Amino acid sequence: MSTETAISERIAISRKAALDLQERIAALASCTDKPGEILRTFLSPAMEEVHQQLRWWLERAGLQVNVDSAGNIRGLHESESGDSPVLLIGSHLDTVPNAGAYDGILGVLMGLALVEGLRARRMPYAIELIGFSDEEGTRFGIPFIGSRALAGTLSEDHLLNSSDKSGITVREALAQYVEAHPEVTPSVFSKKTVGYLEFHIEQGPVLENRNLPLGVVQSVAGQTRCHLVFKGNSGHAGTSPMALRRDALATAAIWMTRCEIIATEVDGLVATVGQISVEPGGVNVIPGVARCSLDVRHADDVVRNLAVENILSEAHAIANRRGLAVETHIYHTQPAVHLDSEMIALAEKAARKAGFQSIRMTSGAGHDAMVIAPHVPSTMIFLRSPGGISHHPDESALIEDIEAAIHTGLCFLDEFAAFVTKKESDPRA
Amino acid sequence: MSTETAISERIAISRKAALDLQERIAALASCTDKPGEILRTFLSPAMEEVHQQLRWWLERAGLQVNVDSAGNIRGLHESESGDSPVLLIGSHLDTVPNAGAYDGILGVLMGLALVEGLRARRMPYAIELIGFSDEEGTRFGIPFIGSRALAGTLSEDHLLNSSDKSGITVREALAQYVEAHPEVTPSVFSKKTVGYLEFHIEQGPVLENRNLPLGVVQSVAGQTRCHLVFKGNSGHAGTSPMALRRDALATAAIWMTRCEIIATEVDGLVATVGQISVEPGGVNVIPGVARCSLDVRHADDVVRNLAVENILSEAHAIANRRGLAVETHIYHTQPAVHLDSEMIALAEKAARKAGFQSIRMTSGAGHDAMVIAPHVPSTMIFLRSPGGISHHPDESALIEDIEAAIHTGLCFLDEFAAFVTKKESDPRA
Repeated sequence: MSTETAISERIAISRKAALDLQERIAALASCTDKPGEILRTFLSPAMEEVHQQLRWWLERAGLQVNVDSAGNIRGLHESESGDSPVLLIGSHLDTVPNAGAYDGILGVLMGLALVEGLRARRMPYAIELIGFSDEEGTRFGIPFIGSRALAGTLSEDHLLNSSDKSGITVREALAQYVEAHPEVTPSVFSKKTVGYLEFHIEQGPVLENRNLPLGVVQSVAGQTRCHLVFKGNSGHAGTSPMALRRDALATAAIWMTRCEIIATEVDGLVATVGQISVEPGGVNVIPGVARCSLDVRHADDVVRNLAVENILSEAHAIANRRGLAVETHIYHTQPAVHLDSEMIALAEKAARKAGFQSIRMTSGAGHDAMVIAPHVPSTMIFLRSPGGISHHPDESALIEDIEAAIHTGLCFLDEFAAFVTKKESDPRA
Repeated sequence: MSTETAISERIAISRKAALDLQERIAALASCTDKPGEILRTFLSPAMEEVHQQLRWWLERAGLQVNVDSAGNIRGLHESESGDSPVLLIGSHLDTVPNAGAYDGILGVLMGLALVEGLRARRMPYAIELIGFSDEEGTRFGIPFIGSRALAGTLSEDHLLNSSDKSGITVREALAQYVEAHPEVTPSVFSKKTVGYLEFHIEQGPVLENRNLPLGVVQSVAGQTRCHLVFKGNSGHAGTSPMALRRDALATAAIWMTRCEIIATEVDGLVATVGQISVEPGGVNVIPGVARCSLDVRHADDVVRNLAVENILSEAHAIANRRGLAVETHIYHTQPAVHLDSEMIALAEKAARKAGFQSIRMTSGAGHDAMVIAPHVPSTMIFLRSPGGISHHPDESALIEDIEAAIHTGLCFLDEFAAFVTKKESDPRA
């Protein structure tokens, strides 16, 4: 077909497919482990329901469906010839407690919409859809069980030392699952998986603020988490003159304002104090102890580490100056992950071809793509989040942005065909 | 006796009396409603024990002892002639939970030490000792029940609408007490009560910081208590750039630093944020709501009210500037109470005569003297609090400061004799 036809056809397909996708999101929102809210956890009964529904849709779209030993549902759209490269498209099916309907599930349904949009057309590569069983970590407190299992990076520590509320470990849960589903396939990448594409709501305000439907993710920010404990002297709020105080909260407050200034001064840096508590906590008692959390993220690990050093040394300097002590403890660091430059370029080109302006973004949140990227060239396409809202029942996506994403995805499939064909003919390209 | 004799005798009496007083404090510390810590509440069994012990000491010192209908224990040291003025000396016998041994009880035992120090000498005025049944408000949540009953300012609201953990109201507790103690006398001032003197630990660091044993209290600071709720937008700590945030805690932090600066700039002003909480309170979530308490005190109500206005309008200005909302609510105000200038002068003169330098102080904490002052000319003498510590098992008083207080108190009794005699001869003086 000519390019002209293709464009008008794609627009028509995308419009219809976006409406279908929203209907499907609404249908899957009713699969929940907790009536009254959306909650789907790793290998739960609600997850089984989602699998049943998805299996029906996938099979109807002509895919071969199976579930792997980590509870990931997978569907294969064969290529025009055997032994072709495979493009993996997906996201996760689990949720946080009291979740919205779009986080994760949108990316899985996007894959389905794109395969349906091909209208049975075969590409020079196979397309594998994947719905990961766990990304949020709601059940076991450790995230990315599904994608880690696929990538082979689920460690002994994860398997043995994380347990759910009933005391079941990840290993035991997986063993029970495999026993109940003897038909599962091994959780490994399909042979010749050469690309991973994940659509996801942005979960932030950047695209809305820029008035853009889509963003292409070039990296997932690295992360440092710390605890700080400011230790002063508690005392009577009435009898201690200001000059003689060692107020832990007032000291923490000065540090928090510095922390915000430091983060604001560095492009792309975010620093958040999300938790605070004081002791003893009486209305009429000067706080003797203030405990704060700190979360720092940036796409460049050097920048992040420098910022953390800077923010923590400010805490020491401020506490020192005011005659208090402060303890700082870094308890979690996660390096930044850079997505694949060729995949990013393909996604950008696809958006442009579909007629949409996009921007390159750093994801401040973790995603399955972060786990897959070290093993398979990956990229992500973000959809604008109205109000920047996520992990909340009000989270959503605009119908026109879903349409833009589908249209862009269909263009991506064509661009990827050209890319794969070129690679196959000249493997050094 | 000559002044010289009197001085050396007073020093000897004070030294011995200070040791006795410390022993008695240790003895009464064992009267508790909760084994393992000091806790004595209004009309409790531990309070009965304290009454029994005190009654024995007071009667041995020649006082006529009775308990009034508010559970205040009272002891009368008669004057040299009938129908004389009465000097009331005392403090409270109840405690906060997990209390120290000195708060309140010291002032009651000081009165006993002073009467004992007179060695049966009669003054031109009677001395009435009082141990108030409740100042801390631990049982009913409302403080000063003992002194309020004496002053006739215990309202219907206090009597009927405050109840303890078992649901008993103040009125019911008092009725039960009177039924079990039919010998109680009415809780009213003795006829011709012309002065009230209260010794108390400072509960703050000022005297220690000035290296002084004693302070004379000229006023009890007025107090304003407020709630503030900063309302921004919660959001993902990773996906919201600094410039697009409406962080309620970061905003509260800026306000807290301003609050401290405002209080520091005004002599005698104190402002404390003792409580803070944020929502949702996740390590990786920008706080959408921050709730703070605010406690502001000053001896001058105009200064205090101006400061509160200033601090709250800063909250509005800061929130406005950053695109947040803030709700401020003043839920408690207590005007300053000025103690009696003649009583203050007598106390200062007494300290000087005893050889001690003292300073005039504002009490930032509430005391029984604050309740008595509108009815009877009152003053207080503070004893240095080591480490500024109070309401804590580590609270204490130095033996040499107790000695200084007793010596000063004995001088006060003589100064008060001269004062009363002059007043009696010229009532307009």
